[in-house]
Amino acid sequence: MHVMVLGAAGMVGRKLTDRLLADGHLGGTAISAMTLFDVVTPAAREGERIEIRTHAGDLAAPGQAEQLVAMRPDVIFHLAAIVSGEAETDFEKGYRVNLDGTRGIFEAVRHSEAAYCPRIVFTSSIAVFGAPFPGSGIADEFHHTPLTSYGTQKAIGELLLADYSRRGILDGIGIRLPTICVRPGLANKAASGFFSSIIREPLNGREAVLPVTETVRHWHASPRAAVAFLLHAATMDTAPLGNRRSLTMPGLSVTVGEQIAALREVAGERVANLIRREPDPAIDAIVSGWPERFDAARAQSLGFKAEANFAEIIRVYIDDELGGRLPG
Amino acid sequence: MHVMVLGAAGMVGRKLTDRLLADGHLGGTAISAMTLFDVVTPAAREGERIEIRTHAGDLAAPGQAEQLVAMRPDVIFHLAAIVSGEAETDFEKGYRVNLDGTRGIFEAVRHSEAAYCPRIVFTSSIAVFGAPFPGSGIADEFHHTPLTSYGTQKAIGELLLADYSRRGILDGIGIRLPTICVRPGLANKAASGFFSSIIREPLNGREAVLPVTETVRHWHASPRAAVAFLLHAATMDTAPLGNRRSLTMPGLSVTVGEQIAALREVAGERVANLIRREPDPAIDAIVSGWPERFDAARAQSLGFKAEANFAEIIRVYIDDELGGRLPG
Repeated sequence: MHVMVLGAAGMVGRKLTDRLLADGHLGGTAISAMTLFDVVTPAAREGERIEIRTHAGDLAAPGQAEQLVAMRPDVIFHLAAIVSGEAETDFEKGYRVNLDGTRGIFEAVRHSEAAYCPRIVFTSSIAVFGAPFPGSGIADEFHHTPLTSYGTQKAIGELLLADYSRRGILDGIGIRLPTICVRPGLANKAASGFFSSIIREPLNGREAVLPVTETVRHWHASPRAAVAFLLHAATMDTAPLGNRRSLTMPGLSVTVGEQIAALREVAGERVANLIRREPDPAIDAIVSGWPERFDAARAQSLGFKAEANFAEIIRVYIDDELGGRLPG
Repeated sequence: MHVMVLGAAGMVGRKLTDRLLADGHLGGTAISAMTLFDVVTPAAREGERIEIRTHAGDLAAPGQAEQLVAMRPDVIFHLAAIVSGEAETDFEKGYRVNLDGTRGIFEAVRHSEAAYCPRIVFTSSIAVFGAPFPGSGIADEFHHTPLTSYGTQKAIGELLLADYSRRGILDGIGIRLPTICVRPGLANKAASGFFSSIIREPLNGREAVLPVTETVRHWHASPRAAVAFLLHAATMDTAPLGNRRSLTMPGLSVTVGEQIAALREVAGERVANLIRREPDPAIDAIVSGWPERFDAARAQSLGFKAEANFAEIIRVYIDDELGGRLPG
């Protein structure tokens, strides 16, 4: 089986690749080849009995999608995207990569031989939803009214994925990831960055800044859960999806206060005290428009599972990023 | 004021043009120029003190959208589309005109001077919705899961319209028209054709074929109501729309049996007896997946109005197409 990862150099792409190489198979079938693609060359990897190719390129450049699809991967994980902030500031780049790049992949499959019908796992986003939201949680049948160009591009990708799947051109499934927490690595400038940094930085003995009030509620899943979603999406029977090919993934709805309480529970008072409150009304205003909770009944009934509490999410970080040890 | 109609040769486009020329103004502002565009040259028209230009072209051809937008219309009615059946059989043509053509217009506006921000009235469709539906009627917040490429293209058009409007590039409003009934003119091969022909043909002294059972329920508005929707959309304050720029138009949910009862009421037993039952399981199967009723609360609260009963819809046909006279 040939597995292709588009966006393989990103955080989720790297973790997905790690897991696929460690498993050596996908859905019971041995992986013989992996193609790792991104705008920068993904790190070289080794896998027992797996031929690994890495490519750097621009997904939306003429001929690029055709070249990738000509390798006839059995499964394509399409994680490549211009992220929310950049798609908002660079209108053309966002539409070119997130809309035209995605459509280009689907079109390349359409123009290949009739017998070729790869599973395409498309990472969508809860950014397809836009406030105002029902207080009870956003159900599977709630409409898509994105408030960013990124969310618009993801919503369009979902529509294309469904239509191309309905026509039998490809076998698509879209998964709307929760906010991934705890993100490893350096702090970034995303407005959502604090959800991870208030956990990650203290666990590494560093101070973190909390720019919002503790009552802010959001929707989380760990990187490990995200990888599990992708693998399940790649291997599950898609027939029960019918023509509704995209799913809101399960997650955990917690307040920032509950995040901090879980940190205190897992790592102690001293670590939790490394969080410094520094309210930033601008970030508060952005975050107040974000979804707080979903009812992901459909994905749950199809076997997708997230963490049950935030302490579990913190322990995943400690296991996967800190070798299982708490600092100091 | 310069008013442009894209898709001016179609049934709704012609009726909209008639009304604009008869009124001579739009929202209290005199119309000084009208540009009528379609894939075939719209019929020549005359209007008092209105300069009328007709153009034939392919909306998706290179340079066409730019050329139209360079005329700087104050209002663009975008009714141009490859219809549902053809978009389903001709994949490329549907995407090229309905998606790329629509995006091309929006892009041409984006690339024009910053001060130019036309009102764009985009005709969407209830085809953005796909079964299964809630029995109580489809509410404004129900998600879009089209079951045709046409519906997919319209749903994408709505998303683009909202994003370009949110960014202040244009001032868009999308309206999802009900099935238009009674369509004048010749019978066509659309699966929905019988909804109109069972009324129109008997009123013209001709036999009509009913291919479905009388319990089939559907969502209707007259051509006159459709034109009124378009005019209201062109002139209303769009601020109350916020970032949710598309609206399900009000309509009338009736069964075929209720349609026939209304025909009997308006035109008598002899006319209603011209309907011949000839069940066609293929058409029944197609129609069974269509929406039966909507709760168009949002559009109603914003001043959009449809007919209150089917007899009224029949009388609109008799008034507008038969000069107010019943046959025989």
